[in-house]
Amino acid sequence: MQLRTDLALEQKEMLEEERRLPPGVDSDEIQIGSVRVTRIKVKDEEGEKALGRKPGTYVTIEVPPFSDDAGMDENALAAVRRELAALLPDEGTVLVAGLGNTRITPDALGPKTAARILATRHITGEVARSAGLGDLRPVAVLAPGVLGQTGIETSEIIAGSVERIKPAAVVVVDALASRRLARLGCTVQISDTGIAPGAGVGNRRQEISEETLHVPVVSMGVPTVVDAGTLAYDLLGGEPPADRELTEPRGASMIVTPREIDLLVDRAAQLVAHAINCALQPGLDSETLLSLTDG
Amino acid sequence: MQLRTDLALEQKEMLEEERRLPPGVDSDEIQIGSVRVTRIKVKDEEGEKALGRKPGTYVTIEVPPFSDDAGMDENALAAVRRELAALLPDEGTVLVAGLGNTRITPDALGPKTAARILATRHITGEVARSAGLGDLRPVAVLAPGVLGQTGIETSEIIAGSVERIKPAAVVVVDALASRRLARLGCTVQISDTGIAPGAGVGNRRQEISEETLHVPVVSMGVPTVVDAGTLAYDLLGGEPPADRELTEPRGASMIVTPREIDLLVDRAAQLVAHAINCALQPGLDSETLLSLTDG
Amino acid sequence: MQLRTDLALEQKEMLEEERRLPPGVDSDEIQIGSVRVTRIKVKDEEGEKALGRKPGTYVTIEVPPFSDDAGMDENALAAVRRELAALLPDEGTVLVAGLGNTRITPDALGPKTAARILATRHITGEVARSAGLGDLRPVAVLAPGVLGQTGIETSEIIAGSVERIKPAAVVVVDALASRRLARLGCTVQISDTGIAPGAGVGNRRQEISEETLHVPVVSMGVPTVVDAGTLAYDLLGGEPPADRELTEPRGASMIVTPREIDLLVDRAAQLVAHAINCALQPGLDSETLLSLTDG
Amino acid sequence: MQLRTDLALEQKEMLEEERRLPPGVDSDEIQIGSVRVTRIKVKDEEGEKALGRKPGTYVTIEVPPFSDDAGMDENALAAVRRELAALLPDEGTVLVAGLGNTRITPDALGPKTAARILATRHITGEVARSAGLGDLRPVAVLAPGVLGQTGIETSEIIAGSVERIKPAAVVVVDALASRRLARLGCTVQISDTGIAPGAGVGNRRQEISEETLHVPVVSMGVPTVVDAGTLAYDLLGGEPPADRELTEPRGASMIVTPREIDLLVDRAAQLVAHAINCALQPGLDSETLLSLTDG
Repeated sequence: MQLRTDLALEQKEMLEEERRLPPGVDSDEIQIGSVRVTRIKVKDEEGEKALGRKPGTYVTIEVPPFSDDAGMDENALAAVRRELAALLPDEGTVLVAGLGNTRITPDALGPKTAARILATRHITGEVARSAGLGDLRPVAVLAPGVLGQTGIETSEIIAGSVERIKPAAVVVVDALASRRLARLGCTVQISDTGIAPGAGVGNRRQEISEETLHVPVVSMGVPTVVDAGTLAYDLLGGEPPADRELTEPRGASMIVTPREIDLLVDRAAQLVAHAINCALQPGLDSETLLSLTDG
Repeated sequence: MQLRTDLALEQKEMLEEERRLPPGVDSDEIQIGSVRVTRIKVKDEEGEKALGRKPGTYVTIEVPPFSDDAGMDENALAAVRRELAALLPDEGTVLVAGLGNTRITPDALGPKTAARILATRHITGEVARSAGLGDLRPVAVLAPGVLGQTGIETSEIIAGSVERIKPAAVVVVDALASRRLARLGCTVQISDTGIAPGAGVGNRRQEISEETLHVPVVSMGVPTVVDAGTLAYDLLGGEPPADRELTEPRGASMIVTPREIDLLVDRAAQLVAHAINCALQPGLDSETLLSLTDG
Repeated sequence: MQLRTDLALEQKEMLEEERRLPPGVDSDEIQIGSVRVTRIKVKDEEGEKALGRKPGTYVTIEVPPFSDDAGMDENALAAVRRELAALLPDEGTVLVAGLGNTRITPDALGPKTAARILATRHITGEVARSAGLGDLRPVAVLAPGVLGQTGIETSEIIAGSVERIKPAAVVVVDALASRRLARLGCTVQISDTGIAPGAGVGNRRQEISEETLHVPVVSMGVPTVVDAGTLAYDLLGGEPPADRELTEPRGASMIVTPREIDLLVDRAAQLVAHAINCALQPGLDSETLLSLTDG
Repeated sequence: MQLRTDLALEQKEMLEEERRLPPGVDSDEIQIGSVRVTRIKVKDEEGEKALGRKPGTYVTIEVPPFSDDAGMDENALAAVRRELAALLPDEGTVLVAGLGNTRITPDALGPKTAARILATRHITGEVARSAGLGDLRPVAVLAPGVLGQTGIETSEIIAGSVERIKPAAVVVVDALASRRLARLGCTVQISDTGIAPGAGVGNRRQEISEETLHVPVVSMGVPTVVDAGTLAYDLLGGEPPADRELTEPRGASMIVTPREIDLLVDRAAQLVAHAINCALQPGLDSETLLSLTDG
């Protein structure tokens, strides 16, 4: 029985519970209005071993929950945009890839985000300027689908396009699992380590990272589910649940999520996509970007 | 802290655990191939008090899980069709109403079922016969939406149409909550008592029943979620969970469901809709009905 | 062979071409920025006979095309809002009904509009005030579907709800056909005469009007298609096309529409819905209304 | 003013009208029940010049219209399957790519077809046999999106994946334009020449063919629209329409299509996808394939 989380923040918390945050892991935390930003750095092998995460930077942005009706939180948007921009090169084409399955709501964050990214790589400078958009950074967008639907590893499809369009960096967006219900839909994780096998909501994929693609890879995700087995383990104070069906009745993995999972995923995709658009097109204001992508 | 279930079968099981099945409740069970049918009759006030359910018949059909790829189970279809037909009058217009919210996947069973019901009330006998369909039973279909989207109680919309079209019976379809994960998507409950306030996935509605509509009302449902609080209660052996966020973090009710909730709801809607179509149009064979409704 | 248009404006234009605008029809026109508003009044039987329209007011608002990316036109919004408000009573519950078929894109304007209307009839004054929304006008919303899917005339479903909730007025929204391609998606017609049989994109329905519902009925529509037969007739200078298949090859009616019909319908629904919301909730500003309905 | 058609059959008809079918073009025609199959071979440069099509084979399968409710025509399915199989190698991985835009209904044939193709490349022989599926031919599936959404030429995305997975052949599916309304939705064109620039419903793309991908490329398409300018030209007996807005009012290209365009595209995608699945997996029967892909 294993606790399932894709959040480095939660892995750090587990270590802290056991009072053994090792020298190989650094962490700092800032609060801006209602938004808390935690930067965790896994510095070396010692840190990797302790946290179970590759060396690199893991930024967690905890924002007010998406479930209230007041629209996008400005502090949240600014924090996500800033933290993303800090991990990306300043120039060159960026490929944004939205991973996951459009037909499975809790797994649809990636394609729903991709559908809102402003693709610009095909727009000539002349066209952009005559449309009053100034200089656009070239952005390409993919929603490569999932292995079960394509028969091709997601990493292969992305690598094929990377070889062709030679971007300066890749941004991959995927749904995550967290340990805590309170984090669902209101936590954004950004990392420069790419996506490791086993990430996402229950699907194993080959690694998508700088090692495999040979360009910087920034991953972004929002937890949309808690694994039911993890919840049970926590409820039982560390005991695995006697009832084996909890985790795998007839082979289907069970999740805990808000009833309004569709709304949660839509709101999260809006925030992540808009933050990406703002980070990649600093010459355009927020409203212009919304009107160009609100399809 | 209360256990949440919409299945009379599970309420009976709770009573049996406590060895107090009262004289006011009868129950029999048959197994046909892979399908088990349990008929529970609440006979009087004593039974109502014990089971927390109005007097009437509650049929539970446990079918093989919908999640395998082999299409619709013939035994399951036959059982649902037969049990539904037994509770309906043999003649006269039937109004089928699919309750719930299309935008919330676990709550979309009703409208997804309604979208597959063959509406015939507007087809004249002559047209039907010249199309080779013989005599069709008049069927009307509504997907009235939910209070939050319409501002009108579902029961009011249905009552308004019942007054106009004066059907011989009403069939209401709604998503249910169960106590056991193993029942999600593979249990159909049929009852002649209508839908009581508080049924469905977390929404309270006014009663839709023979008392309020003055025609027989048959309710059909499939559990699509387990309430997270109920799961926790069971895991903890009857203790309410210490962690209050489990059930209502920031006001959102948490559910446990398979990751493939979209597929589960689609499959359940296909089975329920096809069983209704077969029960209402005994003169048409299964394939013809599928080709007429598979839009 | 008949010219097909749902726009009173185009019927007036036809009369003018023939220089026979009769005394029973009045018309005035104002231009506000990029928006032109034409008010046609059919005053009596003479006007009815000439225009083929019931006595009443027909307002046509010609707005810049929805197809550019710059978001909603403020002048257009203000004009639609003002003209609608002028035809509605100042107080009392309003029922908004979106007619048409969600599964047929050119016919989906009504349900897509309904999905964006803020339903408030179920919200108590106390709840609204504590949410900072002040006094809300009670609004109910229906998307009654189409006869082929429900087996019930749309007018019956609406009448059933009108009897129950007794609104002060009904607003019905439906897709229209126009004669001119240039009007598709960029013309809003508002009328106080309701919807007459045969309106909409090719479906005949029973009348929905003050005569049948006994409360004021305001109809709103946007042309989404030109009938292919009408286009041919115009191209041929008033000759019916020799090729009969043009209009009804194998029984399917042919339409002319922009390739981006999905986008046209979405944009039109956004404008119409937002204008309705603004007209019905004058106490809320535009942004608050958008954030409450942008789901 | 140019007549717009993607059907080689219609280009041949135009030549025949003018009695100048050149020696470089061969054609034969067979009728099987209600299905007519016309095979046109462009044999050399002379033929290419005459027909405006690259040398190769163009098969047109005219089937009964999809708009009746009786399900898929068996003769049509058999013909499409057989003609496709004749152009494909017998062994090796096949990549199926569905071109077009899911958000534009008349352009959605490709992605809607792709969504119904059985992807098998990731399924090991052992897994397939233990599931009773015998030996599966490896199939990969892509829905690469459109340039405006991705910023990447469709041909680049496909070429990137072809380099990675090295298929024995590629099948590309795309929506077509025809000259005749009667062909909409009931004509399937299959060709071994790939997709030339300018094909599809109004979008120009780079060529996707054996020359560019270095593996055999079979293209499949169904006409979903008639260009409004082409219709006008035909109606006027070869005169360009005086009214320039017909073709490009405010820049949007106008199309003629059945009002039920959504249904037409769904039905066409079902037929094309099922024919592809049957052609690629001859070891599985039709019903098994439907149950494996009917998501």
